[in-house]
Amino acid sequence: MRASVLRDGRMIYRDDVADPVPETGQVLVAVKACGICGSDLHFAKHGEKVLEMTERVAGATGGMNVDLKHDIFMGHEFSAEVLEAGPDTDTYPLGSIVTSIPVLLSAKGVEPIVYSNHTIGAYAERMLLSAPLLLPVPNGLDPQHAALTEPMAVGLHAVNKSNIEPGETALVLGCGPIGIAIIASLRARGVENIVASDFSVKRRELAAAMGAHQTLDAADGSPFDTVKAAVVFEAIGVPGIIDDVVLRSRPGTRLVVAGVCMEADTFHPFFAIAKEINVQFCLAYGPEEFAESLRSLAEGEIDVSPLITGEVGLDGVGAAFDDLADPERHCKILVTP
Amino acid sequence: MRASVLRDGRMIYRDDVADPVPETGQVLVAVKACGICGSDLHFAKHGEKVLEMTERVAGATGGMNVDLKHDIFMGHEFSAEVLEAGPDTDTYPLGSIVTSIPVLLSAKGVEPIVYSNHTIGAYAERMLLSAPLLLPVPNGLDPQHAALTEPMAVGLHAVNKSNIEPGETALVLGCGPIGIAIIASLRARGVENIVASDFSVKRRELAAAMGAHQTLDAADGSPFDTVKAAVVFEAIGVPGIIDDVVLRSRPGTRLVVAGVCMEADTFHPFFAIAKEINVQFCLAYGPEEFAESLRSLAEGEIDVSPLITGEVGLDGVGAAFDDLADPERHCKILVTP
Repeated sequence: MRASVLRDGRMIYRDDVADPVPETGQVLVAVKACGICGSDLHFAKHGEKVLEMTERVAGATGGMNVDLKHDIFMGHEFSAEVLEAGPDTDTYPLGSIVTSIPVLLSAKGVEPIVYSNHTIGAYAERMLLSAPLLLPVPNGLDPQHAALTEPMAVGLHAVNKSNIEPGETALVLGCGPIGIAIIASLRARGVENIVASDFSVKRRELAAAMGAHQTLDAADGSPFDTVKAAVVFEAIGVPGIIDDVVLRSRPGTRLVVAGVCMEADTFHPFFAIAKEINVQFCLAYGPEEFAESLRSLAEGEIDVSPLITGEVGLDGVGAAFDDLADPERHCKILVTP
Repeated sequence: MRASVLRDGRMIYRDDVADPVPETGQVLVAVKACGICGSDLHFAKHGEKVLEMTERVAGATGGMNVDLKHDIFMGHEFSAEVLEAGPDTDTYPLGSIVTSIPVLLSAKGVEPIVYSNHTIGAYAERMLLSAPLLLPVPNGLDPQHAALTEPMAVGLHAVNKSNIEPGETALVLGCGPIGIAIIASLRARGVENIVASDFSVKRRELAAAMGAHQTLDAADGSPFDTVKAAVVFEAIGVPGIIDDVVLRSRPGTRLVVAGVCMEADTFHPFFAIAKEINVQFCLAYGPEEFAESLRSLAEGEIDVSPLITGEVGLDGVGAAFDDLADPERHCKILVTP
């Protein structure tokens, strides 16, 4: 079957990948759509660093067991159609449109569907999912929109972790896909003053379309000169941002770090101490948040169509990775095998 | 009158300080005892850095207006005896033993009693306090113990900020006065597993005396190899600790930063992100926590006598500052004018 795989830092089109065979408890699905995630771009460029950091943080429990010298399957934001259940496996009727948290359960254990030499991700024609984890896509939600359940769940999780109240002002730093997901989730939660900052005109327009009440051009100076925010969402993920936030934000600020910075970062604890800042570092989401994200898309509480700025086939993934570097052109490109 | 003042980085004994005169709303008191705080030692050594950092964090609202080229009054952990009320000022009867949060209210505004060229602190025979802020020392509590209301309130505040539950394990890194105050407050809150780590034998003994269920010699390796803590209290305040905590602690750890690190510090956000660590930076306490701290001392819930390892007069403050550098000799030295 066809797939796009990471080889030597580039996404390569292949038409010779063996079809996966579902074990008991697994379901073979045909991928309908898969969003390209910023973390995939990062992994393609800095895979060694990601693996090293993941191993350090995992410590004795072991790392990801990914070999960069062999092809790597990726793609974790997907919707799919049920093709075939494994032996003795109950699942939704063939043809059902489903999604799932990107985790594959097997006899060998639990494997994240994120970067793997063996477990096929959604940059492929077909893949395996876990029957107990499948969620049917309801209300006739467009499968292309359902593929964005996962990134939107990341935003929902960050917002949940912030414990923000509707009357509190939120400042979102960075309007890439994570920042946008946070904005949408803040709006759905009823937050009445959402301010978003980015250097890119297009991203600010998208932020406004997705629910920001005010957008700021980061080139015009510090957003902290304009906004008195109770909660700051950091969705940039580069060194220096945390120091800037603790220096410029108000006393008592809750900082939610949703941007994934892989580099060492230097800041001044004294600034944070003097203001008693709380920093909540965030990653991913829980299964219930994933389900809630799907529900809010299916019920029209969040419309993800403005996020989808491009669509490519499996042979276009490499070029799409390059195109995503330009924030004026793209937010989310979908791969539709 | 007599006082000890900071001049050129050293505490100098003076007997020619003019007696302060209470304004309306102020009370002249005779200092009974004043604890020497680590922040005073730090200010004596690194005053310029403290003022620079304080000004940076204060931004447009202005810094502390302290001139290091002139004598500086310090001393903010005190008990005192009421001598004389200002004009039209109601207060406790003359001779009452009182304490107060270290803040002086005057016609000119609010001034912290911490480092000042003008406002006399408690390293002096007499000082001014604010009538509305006075708390009488109850139950015949020893005024020397009452002087430690302030540092114990710092520990109480850090524990309150942690929202720790009695069944959760607490790990306290560093058993200087702040770590010890945290341990005492954790014990008073009913926390059932308090583990404390320090390099110093004496400090570990003190930690045990004040309520730690287990103490670890930091020279024996990382405490995280031994303890599975839900809440980690960082009471060391040197660069590198935060990175070590986020690398070694468990997923979901709440880190309470109570040590005051004035230097730039480098850490790896990814470690904190991968574990969804929450970092609560802390400083000082609220007035209600200060009052609660006094109450717990007066009612015998916390006995601070093991902390008091020395006593000097106003002419001994300089030597005491030097002596406090040795953790095997001292925790808290009281100045009794």
